Parts: sequence; C-alpha cells; structure tokens
Amino acid sequence: MRRWAVMSKPDAALVRAARGERPAPTPVWFMRQAGRSLPEYRAAREGVAMLDACRRPELVADITLQPVRRHGVDAAVLFSDIVVPLAAVGIDVDIVPGVGPVVGTPVRDATAVAAIRRLDDGDVAPITEAVRLCVGELGATPLVGFAGAPFTLASYLVEGGPSRDHARTKALMHGEPELWARLVDRLADIALTFLRAQVAAGASVVQLFDSWAGALSAVDYRRHVLPASRRIFDGLADTSVPRIHFGVGTGELLSALAAAGPDVLGVDWRVPLAAAAERVPGMALQGNLDPAILLAPWPVIEAEASRVLADGRSAPGHIFNLGHGVLPATDPGVLTRLVEFVHEATSG
Amino acid sequence: MRRWAVMSKPDAALVRAARGERPAPTPVWFMRQAGRSLPEYRAAREGVAMLDACRRPELVADITLQPVRRHGVDAAVLFSDIVVPLAAVGIDVDIVPGVGPVVGTPVRDATAVAAIRRLDDGDVAPITEAVRLCVGELGATPLVGFAGAPFTLASYLVEGGPSRDHARTKALMHGEPELWARLVDRLADIALTFLRAQVAAGASVVQLFDSWAGALSAVDYRRHVLPASRRIFDGLADTSVPRIHFGVGTGELLSALAAAGPDVLGVDWRVPLAAAAERVPGMALQGNLDPAILLAPWPVIEAEASRVLADGRSAPGHIFNLGHGVLPATDPGVLTRLVEFVHEATSG
Repeated sequence: MRRWAVMSKPDAALVRAARGERPAPTPVWFMRQAGRSLPEYRAAREGVAMLDACRRPELVADITLQPVRRHGVDAAVLFSDIVVPLAAVGIDVDIVPGVGPVVGTPVRDATAVAAIRRLDDGDVAPITEAVRLCVGELGATPLVGFAGAPFTLASYLVEGGPSRDHARTKALMHGEPELWARLVDRLADIALTFLRAQVAAGASVVQLFDSWAGALSAVDYRRHVLPASRRIFDGLADTSVPRIHFGVGTGELLSALAAAGPDVLGVDWRVPLAAAAERVPGMALQGNLDPAILLAPWPVIEAEASRVLADGRSAPGHIFNLGHGVLPATDPGVLTRLVEFVHEATSG
Repeated sequence: MRRWAVMSKPDAALVRAARGERPAPTPVWFMRQAGRSLPEYRAAREGVAMLDACRRPELVADITLQPVRRHGVDAAVLFSDIVVPLAAVGIDVDIVPGVGPVVGTPVRDATAVAAIRRLDDGDVAPITEAVRLCVGELGATPLVGFAGAPFTLASYLVEGGPSRDHARTKALMHGEPELWARLVDRLADIALTFLRAQVAAGASVVQLFDSWAGALSAVDYRRHVLPASRRIFDGLADTSVPRIHFGVGTGELLSALAAAGPDVLGVDWRVPLAAAAERVPGMALQGNLDPAILLAPWPVIEAEASRVLADGRSAPGHIFNLGHGVLPATDPGVLTRLVEFVHEATSG
C-alpha cells in the first residue's frame, strides 16, 4: 500500500482538488493538450504512425511533457490512444488519419468476443516504460494515466470504426445482452489491467474516457454499461489514486456515470458546472470550457473561463479543463494565456 | 385566414396531438421515413443526385407518399433537404454521398453574408408544386413541411460542410456577434419564406430542424440563436398550422427551444419524455424511440415503444416518432409493424 501512496503525490493541486479540496490556485490541464495544436508535437510525430508513436517510450515521454513545459499546466496526461490496449492484445486495429480507429475484423459474434484475450502487463511494457520516463522528469507535477471505457471500446470493435449512430453496437447490446455483457466485461478487464499498470509505473491520477457514452439513454447505460465501468473503478480503489470519468454529451447520464464510482466527474460544455453540481452532489468536477471558444478573441475566452471558474465553486473540488479535447486549430499561445489566467484568478 | 384553416386539417390526429389533445390512436410518423430504408426509394433515386431529386415535383411527391402507402403512418413529411432553400438562392452547395452538404465557398465574412439574397416564392416553385401534388394525393393525411433552422444552416455555410465541433461557426458567433446576427437573421428570412410557401401550397404542419443546436450551451443558444429561430415561429403564427421544433442532443436546451415558440417540441432518445414534460410543462412532445433500437429483435422494440408511449402520457399531447431519423439499415417491415403496434396500443 505504501508504494501507491508515494506515487499519488497527495500534495499536488490536481490530486487535492480531486479529493474535494479547494487548493489555490485551481489546477488546470487540457484534454488532448499533448497533440496537434503544438508545432513541437507535429514535428515529433512527423513520419510516425499514431500507434507506432504510442509504443516508443522516449517519444511518448517527450510528447507528454511538451505541454507541461510550454503551458505550465498542473498535470501531464499520458500521450496514448484508447485503442492502444486493444492493439496490445493482438486485435487488428489501426488509426487512420482523418478517420480514426479502424478495426480489421469487427467483433460481432460469440467467437469473436471469446477470441479477445486478457491483457498482461508485458503487453504494455513500452507504455509503462513511458510512464516511468515521464514521472522521472515531472517532479511534483502529477501524470494522468488513461484508458478508454468499455462502451466506447466496444463501439469501435463492433462498428469496425467511428460511428455516428452506434447502430450495430446498440443492436448487439439489445439483441444479445449476455454476449454484450461478456464483451464489455472483457474490455473492463483490459482497461483495468492497463490503468493499474500505469499507476504501478507512477501515474498519480487516472481518467477513464467513455467518449461515446452520451449516445445512450440513461436506462440503457445503467443496464448495459455501468456494471462494467464500475468494475474498473472498484478495481482501482486499493491504489488510492483519484479516478476521473468523462464522456461527451452526458448531461442526462451524470448521476449514472457517478454511480460507476469515480472520484471526479468530467463534464462537457453543455452542462454548466453549477447545474452538474446539483445533479451529482458531493462529487468533484472537471471541466468545462467549450474548446471552440478558444478560437474566439481573448475577451470572450476570459469571460467564459471566469464563468466556468465561478460555476466550479458549486462543486466540492474543481479541476479546470476544457469540455472536450483541444482542437487542432487552437493557438497554443492562447492555451498558455488561459493557464496563466486560471492561476491568477484563483491564486486566493 | 380561411384558406389556412382549410389546409390545416384540424381533425387529423397529428394536428390534434400538436394542439395538446389526446386523439386515439396516438399519431405516428418517422423522421426520414421517406428515405434509404425503403427499396422503392432507392429505386426511385437511382441515378438522380439528391438536390436534383428535390427539384422534380413528381419524384418528390412519389417519394413523399411511399412511406404513407407502405407503413400507414399518420403524416407524410416532404422529401427534401435542409440545404434546398440555400441552393434556391444561388448558394453553391451540393450534397455529396457519404459526406453530406458541401458548400463551394464558405461564408466567413461580411461580404459573403451580405451576398446571401432573400428567397422569393418563385425560387422554390418546384417544391411548392411538389407539395400541391402530395396534398392532392394524401386525402385526410396531413403533410409535414420542413426547413432547417438558422444555426444548423449557418454551420454548414461557415464550416463549408458537416462538422463535428462547429469550431469556425462558434468562432464567428463569439468573435463577430453582429455579423453572426445578420447571418442567422437572413437564414431565418429564408426558412420562414420557405415554410410559408409550403403552408400556402397545403402543408398542414411544419417542422423546423435545428439538427446541430445540441452543440451549443444554453447560454450561447439563447444569446446567439434563439432570436432568429423565434422570428420563424412568430412569422408562422397567422397560418395556424402547428409548428414542431427538433434538434439532437438538446436535453440541456429544451426550455430554450420551447422559448423560440413552437407548438410541439421534438425530443431525442436521450431524454425520457416524462423528464422532458417536466422541463417544458404544457408543451406537446414528439418522439422519441432510439432509431438504433429498430435493429434489435421485435420484443425489445415493443418494450421500448411501450415505454415511450407511457412516458408520452406525461405531455399534454404526444406524437410518436423516433428520436432521430430512420437509419438506412432499418428493415421497413419493422417500421410497418411499429406503426401497427402504436395504433393498437393506443386505440383507446
């Protein structure tokens, strides 16, 4: 147990806010902060395919640290992709530029589900090595580890790629609920093993991304998804690292997502944090500036960021973030200025 | 005024439900019921580009009537596309299969906004002719006319095509709010003229689609979009036809959408109708079976449809529909069976 406690950097502002405290200044980081908005990222990625990049520890560490060095954010987030652990168990998946994850043989029957093997720590050795390299460089700044949640991973596997309507996924969920349950259980195992490996290697916080959960009604989420996601959060309880849960368009699902057991709920820009705080009382919140706002003039950004900070005071703890990932067209100078603004506005 | 009253088919179940009555059986139609789920539609469209098809009155009437003949739905919905009136005022827009609307020269500055001219009735003569042909065939069954709402049309024009994040659109909205207001005002003029022309030609109900409104926070919707959408609903008040408003992912926006002035609010599948009825008391509701459910086995569909009908009793009037358009992979036999089920379950 001591091992986990050392890693979890209990004094870091991010960790304290996740625990429901109100550190001053308010911690801030950005989903997709290590990504295409940064010229140094585009340079580092040149000629390297996404999944190849995710398997090179030095490159992952370099990219992960870029936004910490440039923006002074309060956390690094591991540069990776939600399909990395799927590729690590031998699933034929690639990330096609301009499209997203594409699965060679979609998973649509019992044979295909049974063929998905468990993840061993050895399968993700390059990623845990990258985590160690990051943590060695980061000093007091915590690293956020991450994984994709069962529903979102299942959607990629069943559809064979990104989907607007998740129709085949929902058809499987409703038409063969036992098979569906086996699929999301196996994906929960994989995500849990992956997150525990990241924590063991030094990640101080984890975030489980259920990017597409917002496509589900609350009834369907609770019946067909929540049990698998809850197993992941339960399975991390002994590590004592704060657990963040996030999905897009989840206004109707906030209490269901909270029931899965995270310490922090990420909220997209559609739900003001003050409203979210009423829906999930007692829960620390993360978010939720609309990433598109960052393309507007600075006075608009400052006004919106101020509103987010004011709304965030309704929650027991608040981690400032965007309501979704940084858009590639974002001026990195604006991100730096936003970090400074959040820190100055909340330095107490 | 008499002319409008005659057209509005006040005894039609759809019209009565829209007025807040509870006709038995509950009226049912499906968004995109005239579309790719039907083999007769695919045959009729073969070799004809989408926008060309929308400009051929006989073809439009044939396609519009197909689902009425096949499924026995309680309304026809005009086969068209939300960009039809944009093309009619000379904007270089096409519908690219597999992509969606693509605009030749995106609208991003004052000159481009000023260049968008008003719509004259003559610009949409083939569409109003199609409406007349439909109404002549439909007898007692009402025709739903439709148009795209200003925000959604503006997004296509500003982005140049479909967008996941609407980043340029929001940047214009926030960065140049007066220019944005001129753009959505002009688009409101166009939509209003288009809808009035459809009503004059015999449409008994209209639906304004704000497909992408759910990408906005309620604050932004109310400030930058609601006034333009309200002008459309206000401008239809004298026609006495029921006005339906619909957008996807609008759980956080229901009261704001209601404030725009429709008679009926369409709700997607994420918000149970009973919850929607609490958010917009006194409003008739339309919806909201998840279209993906139609790919599941019949017992699942029947259970979900029963739940929708039960939830719909919370609203003063309920029009059964899907929570979004029919998916192309839907078995048309299932749609027919669903119409029968809704009618039998609510025949009183």
